[in-house]
Amino acid sequence: MSGNSFGKVFRVTTFGESHGNGIGVVVEGVPAGMPLSDVDVQKELDRRRPAQSAISSPRKELDRVRILSGVFQGRTLGTPICLWVENVDVKSEPYEVIKSKPRPGHADLSYWLKFGHVDYRGGGRAAGRETVARVAGGAIAKKLLGYHGVRVLGHVIEAAGVKIKRAPSLQEIERNVEKNPMRCADPETAKLMEEEVLRAWREGDSTGGVIEVLAIGVPPGLGEPVFDKLDADIAKGMMSIGAVKGVEIGEGFRLARLRGSQANDPIVLKGEKIGLEKNYCGGILGGISTGETIVVRIAVKPTPSISLPQRTVDLETMKEATIQLSGRFDPNLCPRIVPVAEAMLAITLADHMIRSGKIHPNRFG
Amino acid sequence: MSGNSFGKVFRVTTFGESHGNGIGVVVEGVPAGMPLSDVDVQKELDRRRPAQSAISSPRKELDRVRILSGVFQGRTLGTPICLWVENVDVKSEPYEVIKSKPRPGHADLSYWLKFGHVDYRGGGRAAGRETVARVAGGAIAKKLLGYHGVRVLGHVIEAAGVKIKRAPSLQEIERNVEKNPMRCADPETAKLMEEEVLRAWREGDSTGGVIEVLAIGVPPGLGEPVFDKLDADIAKGMMSIGAVKGVEIGEGFRLARLRGSQANDPIVLKGEKIGLEKNYCGGILGGISTGETIVVRIAVKPTPSISLPQRTVDLETMKEATIQLSGRFDPNLCPRIVPVAEAMLAITLADHMIRSGKIHPNRFG
Amino acid sequence: MSGNSFGKVFRVTTFGESHGNGIGVVVEGVPAGMPLSDVDVQKELDRRRPAQSAISSPRKELDRVRILSGVFQGRTLGTPICLWVENVDVKSEPYEVIKSKPRPGHADLSYWLKFGHVDYRGGGRAAGRETVARVAGGAIAKKLLGYHGVRVLGHVIEAAGVKIKRAPSLQEIERNVEKNPMRCADPETAKLMEEEVLRAWREGDSTGGVIEVLAIGVPPGLGEPVFDKLDADIAKGMMSIGAVKGVEIGEGFRLARLRGSQANDPIVLKGEKIGLEKNYCGGILGGISTGETIVVRIAVKPTPSISLPQRTVDLETMKEATIQLSGRFDPNLCPRIVPVAEAMLAITLADHMIRSGKIHPNRFG
Amino acid sequence: MSGNSFGKVFRVTTFGESHGNGIGVVVEGVPAGMPLSDVDVQKELDRRRPAQSAISSPRKELDRVRILSGVFQGRTLGTPICLWVENVDVKSEPYEVIKSKPRPGHADLSYWLKFGHVDYRGGGRAAGRETVARVAGGAIAKKLLGYHGVRVLGHVIEAAGVKIKRAPSLQEIERNVEKNPMRCADPETAKLMEEEVLRAWREGDSTGGVIEVLAIGVPPGLGEPVFDKLDADIAKGMMSIGAVKGVEIGEGFRLARLRGSQANDPIVLKGEKIGLEKNYCGGILGGISTGETIVVRIAVKPTPSISLPQRTVDLETMKEATIQLSGRFDPNLCPRIVPVAEAMLAITLADHMIRSGKIHPNRFG
Repeated sequence: MSGNSFGKVFRVTTFGESHGNGIGVVVEGVPAGMPLSDVDVQKELDRRRPAQSAISSPRKELDRVRILSGVFQGRTLGTPICLWVENVDVKSEPYEVIKSKPRPGHADLSYWLKFGHVDYRGGGRAAGRETVARVAGGAIAKKLLGYHGVRVLGHVIEAAGVKIKRAPSLQEIERNVEKNPMRCADPETAKLMEEEVLRAWREGDSTGGVIEVLAIGVPPGLGEPVFDKLDADIAKGMMSIGAVKGVEIGEGFRLARLRGSQANDPIVLKGEKIGLEKNYCGGILGGISTGETIVVRIAVKPTPSISLPQRTVDLETMKEATIQLSGRFDPNLCPRIVPVAEAMLAITLADHMIRSGKIHPNRFG
Repeated sequence: MSGNSFGKVFRVTTFGESHGNGIGVVVEGVPAGMPLSDVDVQKELDRRRPAQSAISSPRKELDRVRILSGVFQGRTLGTPICLWVENVDVKSEPYEVIKSKPRPGHADLSYWLKFGHVDYRGGGRAAGRETVARVAGGAIAKKLLGYHGVRVLGHVIEAAGVKIKRAPSLQEIERNVEKNPMRCADPETAKLMEEEVLRAWREGDSTGGVIEVLAIGVPPGLGEPVFDKLDADIAKGMMSIGAVKGVEIGEGFRLARLRGSQANDPIVLKGEKIGLEKNYCGGILGGISTGETIVVRIAVKPTPSISLPQRTVDLETMKEATIQLSGRFDPNLCPRIVPVAEAMLAITLADHMIRSGKIHPNRFG
Repeated sequence: MSGNSFGKVFRVTTFGESHGNGIGVVVEGVPAGMPLSDVDVQKELDRRRPAQSAISSPRKELDRVRILSGVFQGRTLGTPICLWVENVDVKSEPYEVIKSKPRPGHADLSYWLKFGHVDYRGGGRAAGRETVARVAGGAIAKKLLGYHGVRVLGHVIEAAGVKIKRAPSLQEIERNVEKNPMRCADPETAKLMEEEVLRAWREGDSTGGVIEVLAIGVPPGLGEPVFDKLDADIAKGMMSIGAVKGVEIGEGFRLARLRGSQANDPIVLKGEKIGLEKNYCGGILGGISTGETIVVRIAVKPTPSISLPQRTVDLETMKEATIQLSGRFDPNLCPRIVPVAEAMLAITLADHMIRSGKIHPNRFG
Repeated sequence: MSGNSFGKVFRVTTFGESHGNGIGVVVEGVPAGMPLSDVDVQKELDRRRPAQSAISSPRKELDRVRILSGVFQGRTLGTPICLWVENVDVKSEPYEVIKSKPRPGHADLSYWLKFGHVDYRGGGRAAGRETVARVAGGAIAKKLLGYHGVRVLGHVIEAAGVKIKRAPSLQEIERNVEKNPMRCADPETAKLMEEEVLRAWREGDSTGGVIEVLAIGVPPGLGEPVFDKLDADIAKGMMSIGAVKGVEIGEGFRLARLRGSQANDPIVLKGEKIGLEKNYCGGILGGISTGETIVVRIAVKPTPSISLPQRTVDLETMKEATIQLSGRFDPNLCPRIVPVAEAMLAITLADHMIRSGKIHPNRFG
């Protein structure tokens, strides 16, 4: 009800604020007996961490994860797994200036209107730092999915107005994405993206982009009729990420411009299995997976924190005011949202795998 | 868990199949004492009904609603309201031909892979007819919202490749939408849309489009941090509609191409209230409503049923086959999805109004 | 949130008021392909129906069930099954007298305090008639459990102060319970119970009793740690039945008086399987089923409707008043609550069977 | 779904095992702005702690709570509050002997049957130590309730076969309960109880008892019709406590032996308010609170850990075996379960206070 949980059987419940003690997540629904160590989680957290390149915030988040519960002798117990990451290198001073002046594009204003008492330091619970918990929970989902042949991976297909020229192959994605700071599958495009991102940054401004996330090896039959459709749950998970303002499945908005004869995927035989020829539907028909690759794309807005002056209202004086932010911002959020989006897709799939009887709810293997 | 419910406090639970006895919905969370009669629901069902123009299916669905429970002496009881609509003019014969041949673009294949035993007649539970229940439940949500100053309305902004030229005013939407079969706020564009829709139809094909749904008068503070963000719940509700493949909030995907200084909405005074100058964020910041108009856009794919021949696989023989559908299809689904999308937004808002303490959970007025 | 649903995966959602159009239930979580007809439900409803003997209300409830959805060609679809029972022989006149005078022992007062607007006719949603929906939903749970070797049966062990002398064997329960109006496994005790029940009745009064419900063939491993313990969910289900004021598992309150060495069940071998020697714990340890018979006992209070004069307050005048009820009351509710309690146990077990991976969530057989 | 949460709006989600790193709880649904410090929680944890007298386990649990999130500048944020208690003085060696030999009366056997891989050290997640999280969460519920005039308190009314002679007054309970190790409101009875408890203990055995929990100042209108009745939710919460095997509301099982004319509570005027004369129904009618004191009684079984030899089965050899436990056991669990039962009642009431609109979901005061 308070919105801190995602998933029904495989479920993550997150807690913590950006400048409080730390960020945590309780992961439920992992069957007993699955091998798990902090290394599995740490490697995903390291992918989300800032200060890895010129295009991400220089805030040094060590983000060391500690497993507080649910694992015994290196294997899961079927009981809730709590993961905890202490906040370090927290600098709250820059936020005193915005205490009564909500930052445009941020949640400061709406939180203040809802709660009255808020942690104004760096966005509190609404900060991007909250995604530490998503990535940590997603790491467990990924591990569970991996044992069942499902792989999730994301890449940036557009940033600062620069789009990738053609759809990359799975091999290109796997080979290139972690090799450039933009997490783009095409190294050339990545360079152009980075240039545009940094050009805006030097002007005190920020940029956005589009991420594509794929799930390969998903069995058919995931998703429930009517409301808990697989694509509906994916859309919710993706739209719940702070900077995301749009979600599409398969060809998405492009389908709105096609004719039925173009948009429908012919049903064909692929060896002994039934498949879809073009997969314009993104692996989901009627809200239920078909067995083809799941394809999701999300629109990421430009980082709301910029160093240009902006207009706001002082909540104490109720007069219009101007603020100019200083601090450690991400020039472009896309590369760091890639592991977050992967996490949300992995959690959604792990949940539906158990709900559809593809993974046993209590016992691993 | 089986996905037949939407909303947590204001909650609809739907049941029924396209060619079964009928379609029903149980609506929970309506406070006691609110005036309600079948007329309130009927007028919304009439907007969804087909056979109203050349661009919708000629299936004659009378769709007379009966209130089975929850209302006494013309006012709600605070107990669940069940609405029931019998199926009439059900013609199942055309579906015998597709019994073992899943229709491309439909849920036939994925349902068969999930459940094994399916009602192949007209899509069963996956049919568009399921939306009768959404619209019926949405009618109650709309009525409840209306008493609290919130209004929801949708209109078609693009169909068959024809886009509306400029954003219509609220007055234009209210004046024009119910006057043309495309539910477009601009009468000129509506005519062009209709021409393109019918052109494709004459060629045995179908078209899609884009719908915009607005909510006016929404108080600030709706939505919960992190996962049950207002936009996340809206995205889920919209994406759960059969033909919808994309959702965006405010400027959506267009924001991905802007700079932060353009995308951020300056916070300004509007009289004594705090507001957003441009509302590019679509009335939602950090997942919580700001008090500005909520703006949602959805991509509707072309009607999957077309009369051109299509390739599929015969599930009995496991050989590739061709099917050619005859029957009563909608040339373009957009106009009929408008009330469905309004219903989903209304249900989402009613739910969050109660969850945020804006509407009393037990007593009306 | 409004409390009309029970179960998480196998879930019933009920609606309807005692003197409204009828009573209904939506049953979710039944896998696709299970044979089901109205006869399966009707036979359980017939067991709950009043007017079957001198000790139950003479209200003639025909209670003919109609399956509104979820079944096709005699087998379930995996989609929600709605069952609907029209109210007939509804006499509302006797209730005009109590319109503003809440009946002691009934929910009239608390509903009025909560909702303001209530259906005062026969208790409305709070009436015993609401259990029609439980029994209908329970019939489907029983059928599903039956296919997996689980059987649920209840019997009255105490009524009007008359207790059964010794624990009956399973055979005695099966042989005798449906043969006497008290649903007692011992025919002699049944006669004594009936005498005492009718003696009170002739004096204008009512009586209560204790019911025991058993589940045989339950596999080990049902129930979740900590809060959704099998016994916790059973307790909730049982306590949610109108007249029930106490629940115990296994030896229950008697265990509070034993020593640990007496109360603990020795763990023994029963052939090749591990079992419990005495099963004082009622088939549940640490909230999880052991594989032994589940044993539950519930306290049923005397029927609150009696014909003796009673003191109340007139809500219109806010003065103390006396009421004397006329109408059709059950002298003792126990026999009619037996199928209701069986239904609640069956629903709880069906839910946990799916949750624990013992029944596939989507496909039957 | 995994059963680690209780409550729907005011919700606790617990994690941790008896001999792992510690025990934690995430508390959601606390409105923003409520004063809260670790002292509020610590004082309740101190009441639950063992090693406080001869009749509780000598395990030294320091149980220092740390607030990990959700509080800023001494007041709640409306975001999830995570409380964490590290495990100290953990001695796991004694449990090596029971590694493959499930202890009678414990959850060892059923957990092993369900999960396969278990933390056998001291019961793991099934241990009584799990209740640290309940008490911590309950402390916040109590504080919230206190601001709204609701008080929860429990006392032992029977232990080791010794019953309190008459119902104590509220004043007696408040004055005496924390002054004797049995938490009995009558000092004389407390002494007799203690003698009997210790007598059994010297013989290597354990004892049980009955606890009564009261809630004073509860407003009318809490609880939902049909399934989420207030008493149903209370029953679930109480029965979910490890050693509890029975729950009754008001006069409970005793009502089953009364006549309707005796059991029904006359409705009377108490000054200007409507009240119940005897309150045999325990403050709840039709599942909804009446405004009178809530009365709940629970049966606590004898501590399953005893030092007498017991029969079990060795899971490795699948042969019958005998075990004799050494370690630190509670001679009688009742006094330590008092704060746990209070916590469960407080959580249930806080949840229903918000659900019924008596406490604002977002803003305190």
